[in-house]
Amino acid sequence: MPFEPTDYLPYDFANRRHIGPSPQEMAEMLDVLGTDSLQTLIDETIPKSIRQETPLDFGKPMSESELLHHMREVANRNKVLTSLIGQGYHGTVTPPAIQRNILENPAWYTAYTPYQPEISQGRLEALLNFQTMVSDLTGLEIANASLLDEATAAAEAMTMAQRVAKSKAKAFFVDENCHPQNIAVMRTRAEPLDIELVVGSPETLNPEQVFGAIFQYPGTYGHLRDFTDEMAALHGAGAIGIVIADPMALTLLKEPGAMGADIAVGSTQRFGVPMGFGGPHAAYIATKDSYKRALPGRLVGVSVDSHGNRAYRLALQTREQHIRREKATSNVCTAQALLAVMASMYAVFHGPKGLKAIAQRIHRKTVRLAKGLEAAGFKVQPDQFFDTITVDVGLLQRGVLQAAVREGVNLRRVGETKIGITLDERTRPAVIEAVWRAFGIIMEDRDFTSEYRTPDGLLRRSEYLTHPIFHMNRAETEMMRYMRRLADRDLALDRAMIPLGSCTMKLNSAAEMMPVSWNEFSLLHPFVPADQAKGYHDLIEDLNSKLCEITGYAAISMQPNSGAQGEYAGLLTIAAYHRANGQGHRKVCLIPMSAHGTNPASAQMVGWDVVVIKSDENGDIDLADFRAKAEAHSDNLAGCMITYPSTHGVFEETVKEVCEITHQHGGQVYIDGANMNAMVGLSRPGDLGGDVSHLNLHKTFCIPHGGGGPGMGPIGVKEHLAPFLPGHPVTGGAQGPVSAAPFGSPSLLPISWAYCLMMGGEGLTQATRVAILNANYIAKRLEGAYEVLYKGRNGRVAHECIIDTRPFAESAGVTVDDIAKRLVDCGFHAPTMSWPVAGTLMVEPTESETKAELDRFCDAMLAIRQEIRDIEEGRIDRENNPLKNAPHTVEDLVGDWDRPYSREQGCFPPGAFRVDKYWPPVNRVDNVYGDRHLVCTCPPVESYAEAAE
Amino acid sequence: MPFEPTDYLPYDFANRRHIGPSPQEMAEMLDVLGTDSLQTLIDETIPKSIRQETPLDFGKPMSESELLHHMREVANRNKVLTSLIGQGYHGTVTPPAIQRNILENPAWYTAYTPYQPEISQGRLEALLNFQTMVSDLTGLEIANASLLDEATAAAEAMTMAQRVAKSKAKAFFVDENCHPQNIAVMRTRAEPLDIELVVGSPETLNPEQVFGAIFQYPGTYGHLRDFTDEMAALHGAGAIGIVIADPMALTLLKEPGAMGADIAVGSTQRFGVPMGFGGPHAAYIATKDSYKRALPGRLVGVSVDSHGNRAYRLALQTREQHIRREKATSNVCTAQALLAVMASMYAVFHGPKGLKAIAQRIHRKTVRLAKGLEAAGFKVQPDQFFDTITVDVGLLQRGVLQAAVREGVNLRRVGETKIGITLDERTRPAVIEAVWRAFGIIMEDRDFTSEYRTPDGLLRRSEYLTHPIFHMNRAETEMMRYMRRLADRDLALDRAMIPLGSCTMKLNSAAEMMPVSWNEFSLLHPFVPADQAKGYHDLIEDLNSKLCEITGYAAISMQPNSGAQGEYAGLLTIAAYHRANGQGHRKVCLIPMSAHGTNPASAQMVGWDVVVIKSDENGDIDLADFRAKAEAHSDNLAGCMITYPSTHGVFEETVKEVCEITHQHGGQVYIDGANMNAMVGLSRPGDLGGDVSHLNLHKTFCIPHGGGGPGMGPIGVKEHLAPFLPGHPVTGGAQGPVSAAPFGSPSLLPISWAYCLMMGGEGLTQATRVAILNANYIAKRLEGAYEVLYKGRNGRVAHECIIDTRPFAESAGVTVDDIAKRLVDCGFHAPTMSWPVAGTLMVEPTESETKAELDRFCDAMLAIRQEIRDIEEGRIDRENNPLKNAPHTVEDLVGDWDRPYSREQGCFPPGAFRVDKYWPPVNRVDNVYGDRHLVCTCPPVESYAEAAE
Repeated sequence: MPFEPTDYLPYDFANRRHIGPSPQEMAEMLDVLGTDSLQTLIDETIPKSIRQETPLDFGKPMSESELLHHMREVANRNKVLTSLIGQGYHGTVTPPAIQRNILENPAWYTAYTPYQPEISQGRLEALLNFQTMVSDLTGLEIANASLLDEATAAAEAMTMAQRVAKSKAKAFFVDENCHPQNIAVMRTRAEPLDIELVVGSPETLNPEQVFGAIFQYPGTYGHLRDFTDEMAALHGAGAIGIVIADPMALTLLKEPGAMGADIAVGSTQRFGVPMGFGGPHAAYIATKDSYKRALPGRLVGVSVDSHGNRAYRLALQTREQHIRREKATSNVCTAQALLAVMASMYAVFHGPKGLKAIAQRIHRKTVRLAKGLEAAGFKVQPDQFFDTITVDVGLLQRGVLQAAVREGVNLRRVGETKIGITLDERTRPAVIEAVWRAFGIIMEDRDFTSEYRTPDGLLRRSEYLTHPIFHMNRAETEMMRYMRRLADRDLALDRAMIPLGSCTMKLNSAAEMMPVSWNEFSLLHPFVPADQAKGYHDLIEDLNSKLCEITGYAAISMQPNSGAQGEYAGLLTIAAYHRANGQGHRKVCLIPMSAHGTNPASAQMVGWDVVVIKSDENGDIDLADFRAKAEAHSDNLAGCMITYPSTHGVFEETVKEVCEITHQHGGQVYIDGANMNAMVGLSRPGDLGGDVSHLNLHKTFCIPHGGGGPGMGPIGVKEHLAPFLPGHPVTGGAQGPVSAAPFGSPSLLPISWAYCLMMGGEGLTQATRVAILNANYIAKRLEGAYEVLYKGRNGRVAHECIIDTRPFAESAGVTVDDIAKRLVDCGFHAPTMSWPVAGTLMVEPTESETKAELDRFCDAMLAIRQEIRDIEEGRIDRENNPLKNAPHTVEDLVGDWDRPYSREQGCFPPGAFRVDKYWPPVNRVDNVYGDRHLVCTCPPVESYAEAAE
Repeated sequence: MPFEPTDYLPYDFANRRHIGPSPQEMAEMLDVLGTDSLQTLIDETIPKSIRQETPLDFGKPMSESELLHHMREVANRNKVLTSLIGQGYHGTVTPPAIQRNILENPAWYTAYTPYQPEISQGRLEALLNFQTMVSDLTGLEIANASLLDEATAAAEAMTMAQRVAKSKAKAFFVDENCHPQNIAVMRTRAEPLDIELVVGSPETLNPEQVFGAIFQYPGTYGHLRDFTDEMAALHGAGAIGIVIADPMALTLLKEPGAMGADIAVGSTQRFGVPMGFGGPHAAYIATKDSYKRALPGRLVGVSVDSHGNRAYRLALQTREQHIRREKATSNVCTAQALLAVMASMYAVFHGPKGLKAIAQRIHRKTVRLAKGLEAAGFKVQPDQFFDTITVDVGLLQRGVLQAAVREGVNLRRVGETKIGITLDERTRPAVIEAVWRAFGIIMEDRDFTSEYRTPDGLLRRSEYLTHPIFHMNRAETEMMRYMRRLADRDLALDRAMIPLGSCTMKLNSAAEMMPVSWNEFSLLHPFVPADQAKGYHDLIEDLNSKLCEITGYAAISMQPNSGAQGEYAGLLTIAAYHRANGQGHRKVCLIPMSAHGTNPASAQMVGWDVVVIKSDENGDIDLADFRAKAEAHSDNLAGCMITYPSTHGVFEETVKEVCEITHQHGGQVYIDGANMNAMVGLSRPGDLGGDVSHLNLHKTFCIPHGGGGPGMGPIGVKEHLAPFLPGHPVTGGAQGPVSAAPFGSPSLLPISWAYCLMMGGEGLTQATRVAILNANYIAKRLEGAYEVLYKGRNGRVAHECIIDTRPFAESAGVTVDDIAKRLVDCGFHAPTMSWPVAGTLMVEPTESETKAELDRFCDAMLAIRQEIRDIEEGRIDRENNPLKNAPHTVEDLVGDWDRPYSREQGCFPPGAFRVDKYWPPVNRVDNVYGDRHLVCTCPPVESYAEAAE
């Protein structure tokens, strides 16, 4: 043989691209752990009793180029027609500069939720722009940083209305002109909460009988109505008025605030975010200032840093599920940050004048379309509209719809005789002509005289987007630099490890991300005929089967578009199962005290009573307590919600027993899939006794966190629960939907599928092993310096470890916050703080981090421990020290330095890069100040001038 | 009318995306200029006599989405088959992480040539990696930072050999196994230099009769030969031996250095850079240390900064055309930096083991292919090969070629009876089977036993890519962070204006860039049958017609792949015209002393004698001198080379007279198109009297600079010169080629075409006007502080202005270098330094910069002037001041500060962003040190350790 053949696989994604440590590094790490192989480590970590028997087998893994080739073939099975279906989804033009610099830029898409404000100022600013945009367009004082979709936003508004209304009525009125999926999701949500949904035309509203009412604007069939009188009547009865409003229409038409609405919700999809077969898109919610504490979801606020400079941060977090738990009124956790950023940039890109021009053009095109139809004798409804018309074609409905498809256009089927048409900014004259041809009209769209058919009384009279950010120079050069500046202020995965426990910040590879931008995935309307979405269906079917094999479940629903949505959908599925078995009274849910806050919040949303289970001293479920409470509630036990491995990062050996006890007492077992990254290929929740689980595809399956969303939380269920999975009014199913679109946010699914295809079964399993190796390596290296809480029987942790920082509060006056901020100086995003145990840090490195990066983190943590020791032993001051003053900024360096340690010590602790150091743009942010002086829109210009002084 | 229709065009690319100043800002700027309209300013600036009569009319400009839709249609006219044509172009897999993070990342593609090393450390490191890779693979001591393509690199090697050879022979031997386009380009280059090209088989080489010889390895038909004996024989005769080597083959086979070669050249295309229908790709050249000063092109070297820290920079610049001018031996100016960066990252991504594995697989696949053919009775040549085989099929040639196309595969037609097949890393078993089917063989490619057919004596025995950078952890997470770190060290257009005179650093919009990555443009082999490249041909035809309309020429050649190549091609065209008219003796070329250095260097390359024309005190051509010299050389006048507007940034009124004089004396006029951005839509070189011009598409027509290439320099000519434009051995034409591929670097052309389509005629013209406005605005704002040299009759400059800094040398000891480096502190790339006048700065803002950015620059320049005044007036020290210490780094801030000015003054001069400040990674780089201690490969690890101490 002339030369030694190498067994090196250059395109081995599973082993050399996705997984961080090289084989050599793994050997070194195992050495540190004192164990002889990865297999031994796994044996020490995961109890044999819960291990799966059959290895995962997905056939030969694909290389990146094979994947892209295959994905292209699947994409080509989707047919990209022009969809004028409307119903809340619209064609839109994503400005290429935004696509390239945000959607396709890892600096944006790999960022985490901005809980650490000092390293998140860029996306916080973009989200504040979003809030300002929403607040301006709706004419309401406060808006949050996005919700999942319009339908869930409507449902959130409904429950919020119930909380804030003076009226104690139990019914909620829904305008029949709402989009069907909005009504359906509200119906799903209302039922377990005993809210009676009254659906009717606005004329039939009886304000005295409801705690609130919701109206769609424009209506799903195109109607425009001024709801001012309804709002006044509702207020008279102590009830709450809500408008679901299209933000594009609001650039021309009277805003909900001007009608007296208390809450407005809607989708910002058409602000530059492709339809993506249904998602992800950012929904919005806005309300009056007086209701701000009842607002669900994340809220960006303005505060100051320790030098008094302006700084952004998440505000009013005490409202949220992770703090209020079962008292929470919503389980909203994931938002749609990346999409909200895109929508806000679209508004910045166009400004009020540009948005208005786009809306006017859409309207004028709709008028032209209507005139052509009318000229041919068709009856167009309504008389006045924005972008949507409905045409009664009688028996011709099917013929016209089919003719339209042949012309490359999807229209909406309305009832048995009508056709709905909704135009958008992509509509070209050729499309209008194609629609006409579908109606048998051969005509050119050439009459460009301006005609408007909007009601005079509904014209918008107020200004909007008056803040300078929406009037910046809109040259691409300037826009590109603005996006780069914001990106550079943040620390994301493209610069450093984000060791967030329970969040699984692993690699989001370029190959996985690329197909998301392809037209065949991005341009599909969620309600296109099934034969146009064959690629999606094939993809979803295969991904479903793989996820079933991974989890040990029999069926998957892709509908939940976040982890918390998955919990909620899973509990609904259990509830429907109980009802079908005549056990509808079962409403008690056992939840360990260490559970993620969304667990009790989700249980609350399905109307269940939460019974909290104690933990033993190891953090494990107290089995005796569990058994006692299951017995006590045996007649009414709906089920339990547990997390595996536990939120303490341990593979509890008693998990099967917990499941058995639950089943013995007639309950169903919900296993939270947040920690699935510690199980894939090694253990299956279905085998442990779980009946349903959600999977955070944005954790275990590589969907990027996008700075706080999008996410995907599909649920897997055992066979007996399959009939009770969520359905959808458009695609069918016995149960109601939980999301606006049938498959949640399907345009993300190519990412997770690509991951599975490139890893293969063994690759996925290896990822799990290495995730466990990486966590144990960190735990080992920090041994002695920090106490690692909660280990398994052999002293191993699972895929994350909890580091106790509580002793330092007394010994050195150092809090977990101080350590988190000091890690910024070292060039790291902090681990998860104070969860599941207050005063601790939970570290999850994931399999994607290299040994070098783990070592950099450990070096930083050990140096911090030394600084704490220096305080403890009196070598440095308890108040004026690098920990208390962290993070350090360039401003600190430039200014006077009156500190008992050097600039060098302050800014370049171990771990920090020298040349490539990340500099936070602000010093430590003052949370209390921000909540006391709540500002959730872009501050007025004058305040910038003041700040400059 | 219910609401006011707005005339605002939201997607108006020409007015609101590409052009920086908003209408309001333009009004303010005109006000500062004291002129009432843009039209008036243009009238004051451009002499009426040279203005074009008919406005450009390209029909209605497209919006970005219309453009992408149209471009997609055109792209679909290209057919993407699998090309196994070889001949120097190969299928390759671009790692998605490299595609997304480099090719599609403005931080990389908008960067300029790294002449300012302090803001270019990232790309300098990547290019040093490239040099190290080339040096290692070829086994030669020094390699440059890329050349344009393999064929021009071979031609450069030939002329380099002539310079360094002891032999005074006039002939040069060319192995007949070289790729045809390599031979053709060398032939083109040899002819005007009176080099006799002897083409033959290596056996026929007579070392005594040549100054050098060049061999292709592997040969174009697949042969492998050890050239050790030839090299020894050449050396014995004082001649130079050159090998054109495929870098992929070199991972397995004996390297040129081990054979004794003096020079190696080749293309790194197959290291992850798509074929792109011919380019751009990075060619390489490597040689022995002793010949380093004869090496053409850019060379990255290692030096130190003012603190003694390692810093990279361009080395040995005194070799280059911009300094040596007509004494230069090459006109190479543009390199292929972006592609060299990609190729180097590909090597980092795979490392030596990965590259070797890829090469082995390619070879084994070729063996399998050959065995299948042999089993069916076909005669495969040669017996031993790397990736290329040739099959004699006799009369079946056409049939097999056509059958292959039906199978989706392009094979190479060799002679009348043979077929060439070259495999690559993309070749899958299905492709091998398809080839077999084309030969009538129905067989599955299933025999994966390893068989090798390489000559034992040619196996590589030395190591390569031993530097740690090629052994870094290859997980994508680590690779992504490495690419981000390097990008962050550099200052590119995505962060700040790059006001480089003569370089036209305008917006490279996302919409223009996107199609470059599409398979239909990127995956085509340059020699595919014409019917597979219809999209390209349509695009090129339309772009040609637009460029003709813009320039006033009759025909365009897209072949030159850089501006200097364009000059060379233009002069060749003139020379061929003279020869055809029996005027071959005309070899005198008049060139003004202010000309760009490439002008005289190009004239030298066509064997002309340069006669330098004086400038008058205004910097204009001294007309009397011009006339006198034209008369003096009337019999031998080949032509003149002028730049318009002049390199001094002035529209000289005498341009037509210059052209007339030249024509009167039988010469042809070459108008350098470097400053075309001041003319488009307002004046046409063809109308002024030009016979030929090149256009820098990477200046005026939006191709990004890529950190120092790629570029495109097509030439336009008058009707009478059209027959003399470059031809190509594959696509035909009477003349020889100047580039390897028929259309230069065609995958860049979608960018320029998109620009024309989105701007429209009026938009392009407006861009010109605003470029002139922006330059005049800067000139006006700096008035009083600096002297602006060279203005037109009305005190206006063209699209750039020259600022005199010479007085400060004496008054304050401040050099132009000090000002350039101080601008880095202000967050700017320096303007062009000391060209065309030593001690000056030439500022070209382009139309894409906003007024705010221009003001930021002017504020910075005025503040610098104040600092100079402070020195002049004794308020600050002449040696220890912010100018001399510039640029300031974080290291300065962290360390002791023993300076007579504050940290604040040092680091935050006017212009610098506060939060978003760009921090250079090194202090001022020591050029002299680097040239004295020349290191042009990655330094050994030990030296890193030393540096750390």
